[in-house]
Amino acid sequence: MTLTEIDADEDSAAETAVPTVYVCITCRRPEDPESAERPGLTLARATARAAAGTGVAVCQVECLGNCSRSLSAAMRCDGAWTYVFGGLEAGRDAAALIEGAQLLARATDGILPWRGRPEALKKGLIARVPPLDFPPTDPTEDTE
Amino acid sequence: MTLTEIDADEDSAAETAVPTVYVCITCRRPEDPESAERPGLTLARATARAAAGTGVAVCQVECLGNCSRSLSAAMRCDGAWTYVFGGLEAGRDAAALIEGAQLLARATDGILPWRGRPEALKKGLIARVPPLDFPPTDPTEDTE
Repeated sequence: MTLTEIDADEDSAAETAVPTVYVCITCRRPEDPESAERPGLTLARATARAAAGTGVAVCQVECLGNCSRSLSAAMRCDGAWTYVFGGLEAGRDAAALIEGAQLLARATDGILPWRGRPEALKKGLIARVPPLDFPPTDPTEDTE
Repeated sequence: MTLTEIDADEDSAAETAVPTVYVCITCRRPEDPESAERPGLTLARATARAAAGTGVAVCQVECLGNCSRSLSAAMRCDGAWTYVFGGLEAGRDAAALIEGAQLLARATDGILPWRGRPEALKKGLIARVPPLDFPPTDPTEDTE
């Protein structure tokens, strides 16, 4: 294998990097009974079903730390910002999460667009974090 | 350059990946005057000063989407979970952010430990997102 071939392989891996949705399976509302399946798990399972054939990966996560604003999910894609959402509903928002992840994967500027964004991902925005290649501040420039 | 040397280079890059703190420079409280420097920018500058010599990188970000729970910052490190914090104070929390990033960089399990975590990063936790290598759920296993 030559260096050129290795480069080509890396490019192809980057291009095929799949958008990923993380759903918290521990989330429940205070009024939800302890004995029932956690609504977070219900949402995670529905999201996995909604992802079938879309190329979006779904991860079950035990806690996204957003407990008081649950149900919670996050999404990321190489080169894009990472988004965290709260206030989701188990029986309603699986398709919105997959649709959002697909929108994010297509966003050439790495930002989840407002136009066309599912309503649950507008109202439920909790935070976003820049992509890995986001430029650090030059400390000689802006620390005075 | 041989393949072994390329592998060694990649390992070394991974090991020296610096923890990064992202501070929102747009954040202000509703009561803050429009004319003054944004408290988020004040916090970002103080954080950059606190980072000097620590090996922590600081990025100024225009919005972390956590506006109603500001001031806001996030931190990440290769192999670790990414954390978002809110309710920070410009004149108080720069050192806490740097200390937290150093704790995260040392965490062998990729989780910011509770013990020893600065108080502002306990009270101010908004959300956390898994590291890139977090395993996706097998869709054949858990979608019924």
